[in-house]
Amino acid sequence: MHDPANSGDQASLTLAEPPDFDSYPIHHAVKDATPIAEGVRVLWDDGLECRYHVFWLRENASDRETMHPVTREQALQLLDLPVDLEVVEAGIDRLGNLVVRWSTGDESRYHPGWLYAHSHGTLEHFTLPSRVFWDASLQEDLPRFHGPTVLQDEGLFGRWTQALHVHGLAILEGLPRFPDVIEDVPARLGPLRTSNFGRVFDVRSRPDADSNAYTDMALPLHSDLTTREYQPGLQFLHCLENEAKGGDSLLADGFYIARYLSETTPELFDALTKIPVCFANKARETDHRWETPMIRLDEAGECEEVRWSPWLRAPVVLPFEETALLYRALRAAFAAADAPHHRINTRLQPGDLLGFDNRRILHGRMGFDASTGARWLRGCYVEREELDSRLRMIERTKRTQQELASGGVD
Amino acid sequence: MHDPANSGDQASLTLAEPPDFDSYPIHHAVKDATPIAEGVRVLWDDGLECRYHVFWLRENASDRETMHPVTREQALQLLDLPVDLEVVEAGIDRLGNLVVRWSTGDESRYHPGWLYAHSHGTLEHFTLPSRVFWDASLQEDLPRFHGPTVLQDEGLFGRWTQALHVHGLAILEGLPRFPDVIEDVPARLGPLRTSNFGRVFDVRSRPDADSNAYTDMALPLHSDLTTREYQPGLQFLHCLENEAKGGDSLLADGFYIARYLSETTPELFDALTKIPVCFANKARETDHRWETPMIRLDEAGECEEVRWSPWLRAPVVLPFEETALLYRALRAAFAAADAPHHRINTRLQPGDLLGFDNRRILHGRMGFDASTGARWLRGCYVEREELDSRLRMIERTKRTQQELASGGVD
Repeated sequence: MHDPANSGDQASLTLAEPPDFDSYPIHHAVKDATPIAEGVRVLWDDGLECRYHVFWLRENASDRETMHPVTREQALQLLDLPVDLEVVEAGIDRLGNLVVRWSTGDESRYHPGWLYAHSHGTLEHFTLPSRVFWDASLQEDLPRFHGPTVLQDEGLFGRWTQALHVHGLAILEGLPRFPDVIEDVPARLGPLRTSNFGRVFDVRSRPDADSNAYTDMALPLHSDLTTREYQPGLQFLHCLENEAKGGDSLLADGFYIARYLSETTPELFDALTKIPVCFANKARETDHRWETPMIRLDEAGECEEVRWSPWLRAPVVLPFEETALLYRALRAAFAAADAPHHRINTRLQPGDLLGFDNRRILHGRMGFDASTGARWLRGCYVEREELDSRLRMIERTKRTQQELASGGVD
Repeated sequence: MHDPANSGDQASLTLAEPPDFDSYPIHHAVKDATPIAEGVRVLWDDGLECRYHVFWLRENASDRETMHPVTREQALQLLDLPVDLEVVEAGIDRLGNLVVRWSTGDESRYHPGWLYAHSHGTLEHFTLPSRVFWDASLQEDLPRFHGPTVLQDEGLFGRWTQALHVHGLAILEGLPRFPDVIEDVPARLGPLRTSNFGRVFDVRSRPDADSNAYTDMALPLHSDLTTREYQPGLQFLHCLENEAKGGDSLLADGFYIARYLSETTPELFDALTKIPVCFANKARETDHRWETPMIRLDEAGECEEVRWSPWLRAPVVLPFEETALLYRALRAAFAAADAPHHRINTRLQPGDLLGFDNRRILHGRMGFDASTGARWLRGCYVEREELDSRLRMIERTKRTQQELASGGVD
């Protein structure tokens, strides 16, 4: 076969850019490339054999006509390509790029690190660390960080974000007791999510409460805004005052509880993943409701989200037997979360900022006596995916630094 | 059976309150009520026979100990009830309330309108109007309203919200050309959703574009923020200037296109509802990505959401044959949306506010020539569920007014 790498084209002298801003260290080389029907077959130097589809390759080329040079978003549209596009030649250039010549006469080159990274079922680049589920034993080991240092030290900031993902919660201690801290610190992760309770909300006892949260009642373990299709991901609560008698914070790991239920009462767990519950607000001016099972699993059967609402459920309208099964399951779930060996309790100190994954971690409080002193928490929400993006960026930065240090090639 | 209605209790003289703030006209009467295992069997005067579960009934009672009188959220927790709670007596009082006496000695009364409304599979109270799917023929019939009137007339405001739901889009005309209109008008539906582009974004050609939207390129039909788990529901674009040559707006109904694909190429439609696509941003400072099929159906097989991104897709990592199938499906979908008989085009006039359901309606624009004049749209997002809540409230208000007018009983 004629090797297009020897075509003398100047472009063959530079390593192709990846089509995104990530860094792809080169650990493997293309040994052989052959056109096949609808694509290219590539043999890698570790024996891996891969087939890449014609449109997949073509639309992920990184030249300026395919990828907008400033935004790195696709400028070439899939429909701009002829439906019968073919690979007429495939080869390797001197720098190790895969080179593909198209039936249109164009040529594309592919960075071997990028290509290899996209040759497996799992893209390790974008996989988040594993979560660690916890029970009451976390009480002694609650992830706590010195707030002012976290805000100045990139490494510690990274460990804080990691804890928010891995354990689903973390406390920053010793922050200033200013009301605007709640707007500044969480906003470093991403934009705040505004709800009907505002961009920031004040948890204090109020005579005109439009939520049980704004009374001095005990609040059983729950998630916030279960009545919305997309529950807020991360919740932050900044403690400004906590003098009242009572009011300790309760926390439990909903994913741990879900696993516990799946192991101890699989038929009830099953019901909680399948029977839709109607989560509804009770308000004079709005009617928000969302129907979905209380535990949601992803494609792999892993817990993706729990929606935990002892007191914001509308009456389900289901056949009698299914209703009976659901109530058995609800009772089992609430009881499991409430069990002292499954939950932790902690008293927030003024200056503490508690952050937790509202789609995983259940939170509540003991009742307090508003007549014995002030209790004032300020809260806000930031989506979980902002944290995910941040965790991926931390890894990307590490890769880029390693690549720069190693001169780019392994 | 001893009829608890004759117990002489004062409470029996008032109609029980529903456990929420909605209005439940009474069209049917309880004819007979009998305790059964785990509940009550009720015979209605239209022959409907229903079984209500013991916990379902008990936790939906509306007395002050069960339901917080101010928030109407549950004050009684499911776990506070004995697991062996039983109905010991059931009957009807003089006003038609269902009366239940519990094994704990307590008694609860139920509003017959509320109870009947919750006795069918579908809660008509909360069902939204049916959507109307559309193709290019909507061009002549685009829902347009006089903006200043909509903001003053409750009835017209309702028709505007209805159009946003039913057709998925509507234009308010003749609004002032002030930059803050985009913050004021959509905010009447609910809180604005802030994204990385801000609380409000300006669509203009910029040299430092971090999105194709901020160039003068043509934008093929797409949805916004496909890379987020929860795509923004409603998008609003307020036209402040539109002097440039080109730049007409393109719109297509993603749900119509989905149905069209399901009828013409069912195997490709099937692929689009099952094969996960990786939607990813290409940015220097963030790495947002979300993997999900491009068309999402609800439990009933109805279209719930489309995610349409010709240019924000990361390379899929799938077996070759599945990749080939996905590309056939993507091409078919993009081509169907782009077909002139499926889409409409409209040129926004300064003062127009276009609103559309970003999870259903695809939008795009023709390229424009920034050197020929200014083109400036200001945009923002509000969640679809805020609209849903508003539509339910409009119906609730109607019901309440009807009930007041009729004296409460049919």
